[in-house]
Amino acid sequence: FSSTTPIKATLFPGDGIGPEIAESVKQVFTAADVAIEWDEHYVSTEVDPRTNSFLTWESLQSVLDNKVGLKGPMATPIGKGHRSLNLTLRKELNLYANVRPCYSLPGYKTRYDDVDLITIRENTEGEYSGLEHQVVKGVVESIKIITRKASMRVAEYAFLYAKTHGRTKVSAIHKANIMQKTDGLFLQCCDEVAEKYPEIEYEKVVIDNCCMMLVKNPALFDVLVMPNLYGDIISDLCAGLVGGLGLTPSCNIGEDGIALAEAVHGSAPDIAGKNLANPTALLLSGVMMLRHLKLNKQAEQIHSAIINTIAEGKYRTADLGGTSTTTEFTKAICDHL
Amino acid sequence: FSSTTPIKATLFPGDGIGPEIAESVKQVFTAADVAIEWDEHYVSTEVDPRTNSFLTWESLQSVLDNKVGLKGPMATPIGKGHRSLNLTLRKELNLYANVRPCYSLPGYKTRYDDVDLITIRENTEGEYSGLEHQVVKGVVESIKIITRKASMRVAEYAFLYAKTHGRTKVSAIHKANIMQKTDGLFLQCCDEVAEKYPEIEYEKVVIDNCCMMLVKNPALFDVLVMPNLYGDIISDLCAGLVGGLGLTPSCNIGEDGIALAEAVHGSAPDIAGKNLANPTALLLSGVMMLRHLKLNKQAEQIHSAIINTIAEGKYRTADLGGTSTTTEFTKAICDHL
Ligand SMILES: CC(C)[C@H](C(=O)O)[C@@H](O)C(=O)O
Ligand SMILES: CC(C)[C@H](C(=O)O)[C@@H](O)C(=O)O
Repeated sequence: FSSTTPIKATLFPGDGIGPEIAESVKQVFTAADVAIEWDEHYVSTEVDPRTNSFLTWESLQSVLDNKVGLKGPMATPIGKGHRSLNLTLRKELNLYANVRPCYSLPGYKTRYDDVDLITIRENTEGEYSGLEHQVVKGVVESIKIITRKASMRVAEYAFLYAKTHGRTKVSAIHKANIMQKTDGLFLQCCDEVAEKYPEIEYEKVVIDNCCMMLVKNPALFDVLVMPNLYGDIISDLCAGLVGGLGLTPSCNIGEDGIALAEAVHGSAPDIAGKNLANPTALLLSGVMMLRHLKLNKQAEQIHSAIINTIAEGKYRTADLGGTSTTTEFTKAICDHL
Repeated sequence: FSSTTPIKATLFPGDGIGPEIAESVKQVFTAADVAIEWDEHYVSTEVDPRTNSFLTWESLQSVLDNKVGLKGPMATPIGKGHRSLNLTLRKELNLYANVRPCYSLPGYKTRYDDVDLITIRENTEGEYSGLEHQVVKGVVESIKIITRKASMRVAEYAFLYAKTHGRTKVSAIHKANIMQKTDGLFLQCCDEVAEKYPEIEYEKVVIDNCCMMLVKNPALFDVLVMPNLYGDIISDLCAGLVGGLGLTPSCNIGEDGIALAEAVHGSAPDIAGKNLANPTALLLSGVMMLRHLKLNKQAEQIHSAIINTIAEGKYRTADLGGTSTTTEFTKAICDHL
């Protein structure tokens, strides 16, 4: 890619505060002269029978065509008989790995300093199989599925990520002392891949112990790879260490080089449309997207502008203790560029 | 019970450091004049066919007879084809609720002050069903089971606990946005029980969000009730907030009034027999056992002696940054009585 021929990227502004924070990303990218042509798709108000969700087939196709995209929050309606939008995306686009870096933001104080963790979550199976049934009244079961295919590809991704990002250690998180077959298979795949990376330190950590050690001393960890549900839990825990989901980016990796960056916080309907939302998580996700596109110079510029704006502390949104509007905060970032 | 007629209680010293920390409990209880007659049972080196584990049938029977007991750590051998000792106890004795208070110990500093949480874990089902199989090579599944019976009894226990312990709020932790049927049934049971306790605040929190909020601001929570695996994870996380499993007690509640208090940390084979282990978790579990027996005065005396010894800081074991042996630390507690 040359940075003057615009790259087409799908944009899902999403629900609630989504459109406002997506607007912030567009402004910051423009200010940084990023040659992205946004292919915008809104969440529909009608269920599309081809996806059995509010996400239309055209929206999915756009990501398949562009191979790169950015996604705001989409509300997951509970118990309406159609699929969650997030899950539809992950499954239909085969977004097999969810990468969530959690690092302390300079200038934004939490109880933890110098956190620098990468959680890599298997994104397609495990407890998210969608297979559940009532055996008899009062007895229900859910099926957790672990496959060699999905475990191998996420393990491969995690070790390759560690190697190409100068990381030194991968921890595989599991509960194989209880789920010997499912989590056992996941670990076996991690073991196999680890052998091909003798330069990367490798360890296996039981999820309960992992959570205890993360809150006691997050510096013990570097890259963490795990099945779907544990990834859901641990990535939120890690985000909490550095301030919460409003500050942490994520990127979903699919086959054929697809990358869909995503702010994983909620759609915050209570503050939607009020110019109060914090666009940081979506902006940092946008930065991950730029890095994926090898637009490293602009990624770094935007990243620094965000970090510096927060560190200076003059313009912060209410969730970070400030009084700035989304627009003011966005302008401050643009001024840093 | 009169405090002069000795009460018979089962004692499982357990593996590794178990015998040393159990010795500490015996000494402290003697120093406090607690009229307990210990009925000691060691973990066997042979598998008992009636339990399919190293735990003998006689040991189980002892708890059923005494209705009260204290348990040290038991190593869970992985993949040997017989049942985990901890699971054998929970299933055979129908220990349906695991109560783990996590509170900041005065004088022992962590990143968090004034933590005061009670996690109540369903202890018999969920992902711990033991049902797993290989569908085809490379595809395995585990079955998670949730029943109305087990969910109701743990929910009942949690609300009754809250009410009788002056607690004001119960949070039910779940992932019903993904496991609508299993976690949905668990929540429905909590909803039903909550209606009978209008004076107790009740909320439902998704597990990933719960973990994020716990590390950001544990004061948001009070009593937490949840299915087995989430309880395993969250109770360790909460223990981490106040210093780890070496400092937090637990008690398993069964039907017919059975209570088996338990230190849930590992058996630490590396330091076993070296007089280095920290007996605090087992001691505080012993205190929970005394409270269960309504020996409240002695429970408080022993509790204060432990807390004061740690707070003074002169005698601390190595895990707390001190240089005391188990014996020295134990003696210091006895001296406080
Ligand atoms: C909204 C929910 C379905 C989703 C998940 O459980 O994966 C969210 O928590 C996430 O982490 O992206
Ligand atoms: C040792 C293990 C089987 C056990 C569990 O998973 O329940 C432990 O982590 C616990 O919390 O008591």
